[in-house]
Amino acid sequence: MASVTLYDTTLRDGSQMEGVSLSVHDKLRIAERLDQLGVHFIEGGWPGSNPKDEEFFQEAKSLNLTHAKLTAFGSTRRANSAVEDDANIQALLDSGAEVVTLVGKSSEMQVADVLEVPLEENLAMIRDSVAYLREQGKRVFFDAEHFFDGYVANPEYSLQCIRAAAEAGAEYVVLCDTNGGTLPVDVFATVNAVAKAVDCGIGIHCHNDADVAVANTIAAVQAGATQVQGTINGYGERCGNANLLSVIPNLQLKLGMDVISEEQMGHLTELHRFTAELANMPRSRYQPYVGESAFTHKGGLHVSAVTKVEDSYQHIKPELVGNAKHVVVSELAGRSNIAVKLQEAGLSADVSGKRLSALLQIVKERENEGFQYEGAEGSFRLLVERTETGYQPPFDLVDFMVVMEKRRRPGNWTGEDSLCEAMVKLSVNGEVRHTVAEGNGPVNALDQAIRKALLDFYPHLKDVELTDYKVRVVSQGPGGTGAVVRVLVESTDGEQTWATVGASTNIIEASWQALSDSLEYALLQR
Amino acid sequence: MASVTLYDTTLRDGSQMEGVSLSVHDKLRIAERLDQLGVHFIEGGWPGSNPKDEEFFQEAKSLNLTHAKLTAFGSTRRANSAVEDDANIQALLDSGAEVVTLVGKSSEMQVADVLEVPLEENLAMIRDSVAYLREQGKRVFFDAEHFFDGYVANPEYSLQCIRAAAEAGAEYVVLCDTNGGTLPVDVFATVNAVAKAVDCGIGIHCHNDADVAVANTIAAVQAGATQVQGTINGYGERCGNANLLSVIPNLQLKLGMDVISEEQMGHLTELHRFTAELANMPRSRYQPYVGESAFTHKGGLHVSAVTKVEDSYQHIKPELVGNAKHVVVSELAGRSNIAVKLQEAGLSADVSGKRLSALLQIVKERENEGFQYEGAEGSFRLLVERTETGYQPPFDLVDFMVVMEKRRRPGNWTGEDSLCEAMVKLSVNGEVRHTVAEGNGPVNALDQAIRKALLDFYPHLKDVELTDYKVRVVSQGPGGTGAVVRVLVESTDGEQTWATVGASTNIIEASWQALSDSLEYALLQR
Repeated sequence: MASVTLYDTTLRDGSQMEGVSLSVHDKLRIAERLDQLGVHFIEGGWPGSNPKDEEFFQEAKSLNLTHAKLTAFGSTRRANSAVEDDANIQALLDSGAEVVTLVGKSSEMQVADVLEVPLEENLAMIRDSVAYLREQGKRVFFDAEHFFDGYVANPEYSLQCIRAAAEAGAEYVVLCDTNGGTLPVDVFATVNAVAKAVDCGIGIHCHNDADVAVANTIAAVQAGATQVQGTINGYGERCGNANLLSVIPNLQLKLGMDVISEEQMGHLTELHRFTAELANMPRSRYQPYVGESAFTHKGGLHVSAVTKVEDSYQHIKPELVGNAKHVVVSELAGRSNIAVKLQEAGLSADVSGKRLSALLQIVKERENEGFQYEGAEGSFRLLVERTETGYQPPFDLVDFMVVMEKRRRPGNWTGEDSLCEAMVKLSVNGEVRHTVAEGNGPVNALDQAIRKALLDFYPHLKDVELTDYKVRVVSQGPGGTGAVVRVLVESTDGEQTWATVGASTNIIEASWQALSDSLEYALLQR
Repeated sequence: MASVTLYDTTLRDGSQMEGVSLSVHDKLRIAERLDQLGVHFIEGGWPGSNPKDEEFFQEAKSLNLTHAKLTAFGSTRRANSAVEDDANIQALLDSGAEVVTLVGKSSEMQVADVLEVPLEENLAMIRDSVAYLREQGKRVFFDAEHFFDGYVANPEYSLQCIRAAAEAGAEYVVLCDTNGGTLPVDVFATVNAVAKAVDCGIGIHCHNDADVAVANTIAAVQAGATQVQGTINGYGERCGNANLLSVIPNLQLKLGMDVISEEQMGHLTELHRFTAELANMPRSRYQPYVGESAFTHKGGLHVSAVTKVEDSYQHIKPELVGNAKHVVVSELAGRSNIAVKLQEAGLSADVSGKRLSALLQIVKERENEGFQYEGAEGSFRLLVERTETGYQPPFDLVDFMVVMEKRRRPGNWTGEDSLCEAMVKLSVNGEVRHTVAEGNGPVNALDQAIRKALLDFYPHLKDVELTDYKVRVVSQGPGGTGAVVRVLVESTDGEQTWATVGASTNIIEASWQALSDSLEYALLQR
């Protein structure tokens, strides 16, 4: 069976999308999931361009990737200078990545008018940079920027660029449709011609500006490309990159290629949600294969047809990609989801079929209110515990109050005083504590006050620390500020890490839920 | 120049998308815009299936369409009955539409297992229904449901179905990829084969389940289809239909076909926004051609390239489709970004090189604090205004206070009472207002209270409405809740839309900044 290697650039090109924002820690977590998915190469970032990406490569050394290789991205050396002295190239070496992806110009116009160097010098820049990195023991992929546009205008020069890279030792030349304006027939014809003209692997890197990035990627593979670049959820500059969550099932389920295992394919939907959550991006419910509505039947006609012949209005079985049919909200599919989650939490043995249905009901209600348990395993675990008869929470809230005040200093246009305080009343085994604390915001003040109250009873809570706090607007009410917000909190006690969730129209309330879940979970672990 | 006719089904198939909701009045307004766009056929609905669609056709008689024809959608007659007695067919006639689009099965499996009628009877149903409507003076298009899937399994029967329609007088047979699972090469091959086998116009109707609906549509046209069906913004069941706002520019600007006029093409972006507004759907800022980020440049490298050669990182000139280049003012950017941005805001002439440096300095400082002017043009504009000597803000904050209280109801484990109030003191030209308001969260309460204070002075602010509210955690402090959060608020006065930003460790403070910027911007526009 024909095969391709998968090259993910979510952490680099994906993070260029307006609105996507990934911390170093987020990137590490996504990298682990990409590895589990069976991606072959994970582009971690551009170490020469910013300190955050350099930090990522340092931290990534402790990742335990079983399958994927990290790659570092950077550009060919500067014009008219020695490759050994190039700080950008040096940063690639310092990153420690075994594979380096070098981007260089492969369009005459771009070289002459944008880079403003002689055509021959650009070829030398490619040749020198690839050869030098090869000498230093790196595997090198060459990203041929603007290849398709360049090839239309001057095919011979574009071929010279990628030949220079191949001859200097590049393992793959990756043809980039940088501006995303090429259509599938043209991609097919060009890749086909290139495959005859060069003697190394061909990769494809597409952008979605003409709304055909996935189709272009497939066309390239059908014409002979064997490395596929793309991102999770199609994140990427402007209109995004080719969406790997569509490319992978198209190649495997439609064209019969051997890309990832069946089991890995079953995690596509989960990865869609996980990555959106970490990138703090709204999910598209209409996203092919993995969106919540991807297998939803609204028309009554379709619904009755689907009950006669399951596949009559669906192109694949949704379970193949970890999704579910949405209409006949298959009680079974739902229950098995919950069962899987329980298994993950090590609780499966204790939970009867009847309780499974009750849990499913609660999860559905809560998700309707804006909660989401993907990525909030701590809160899910508590939800299960709380349905146990006889569960005793380690503390009870009696009440809390938050006050925030801001006051302009008289006679001073910009000077301001502000104050934020939280008062919390808690009871533990009937004993009440009433505390107050200040903070640099209402949530921070609340966090301080709860801890103050609980530390008396549970001194070991001092080791528990919040490491991340995310806010997402879930649904728009009439008038933006009436919307439901979801808060995701991540905590650690130095050994374990857990995440908890809250949802409400009131951001302080939602934060309270996630904060108190976090502490309750910490106490439960003892 | 080759040409195609455009067939829009936003009002029928588009309204099948989960979340899309169109009143009869909305549909009429969209129909007028589609006519102005130069669409040839507008499918108004399925008069036999629901009263709302019947009402639409009655109301639509008063529409003054200059170019487009309305079409009514319905299915072939029921099995084993006379076409004259078919209520559904009668409803099509009653609609008054000159063109009728009949949907019928064209897949052996669907006929045998879902419809459960003999193969020959299905052919008779197609033949009778088309012929009858022709006799009644209608133009008829035949939508061949499940054509591509049927053709793979039994090409001969699928061809018999469309031949039956063509021979009975159908002007077009429209090949439907009903389940949306076909890939472009297969669409191309099939349409190519059909074009040789039937003697009438061929249409194409694609769904996006494999993320290639636009590419499939283009492939069909390249193989000989001359009628293109699709919807605005790709609305449609499950993952949507082929997006006409991508198909049209691809055909015209990339393949050089003659589809609509240049002037009409310039309205694509407006139509994208208009239709989203009426359908009550969030707009995707990443939508190809028409999205707000479709021509956005974030990286400084790209920005400086774009100033050298305008097209170096864009596949078309955004003005062609009524969009605009959107240079993101971000920390990556240099003075050239700020200059371009000022030009967009119509302020470039007034700003000296020296002030440019000063502004860049302020932007950098603010972005360091967590602000981001990408997507917050309102706040950027205010930032420029405020550096003008003699700028008088339309109002001044004296102080505000927000109180939130949550109290567990005694004896009730889950019952809770909560309260959220904001008190605001503002001065306008030395006159002070002190107001209080309640809200479903602190930000909502604050919003209500500011409005209460300002409406006395500026009654037209009542037209200003918040349409979106986003919260993002920008940087992680030690302990998650100490992090800086950024709030982005989008507002409208019914005509214009603007976005403003705030950033602080205190989410209420950040929201206040964005809220008050929004109102200050609204007042500035007068």
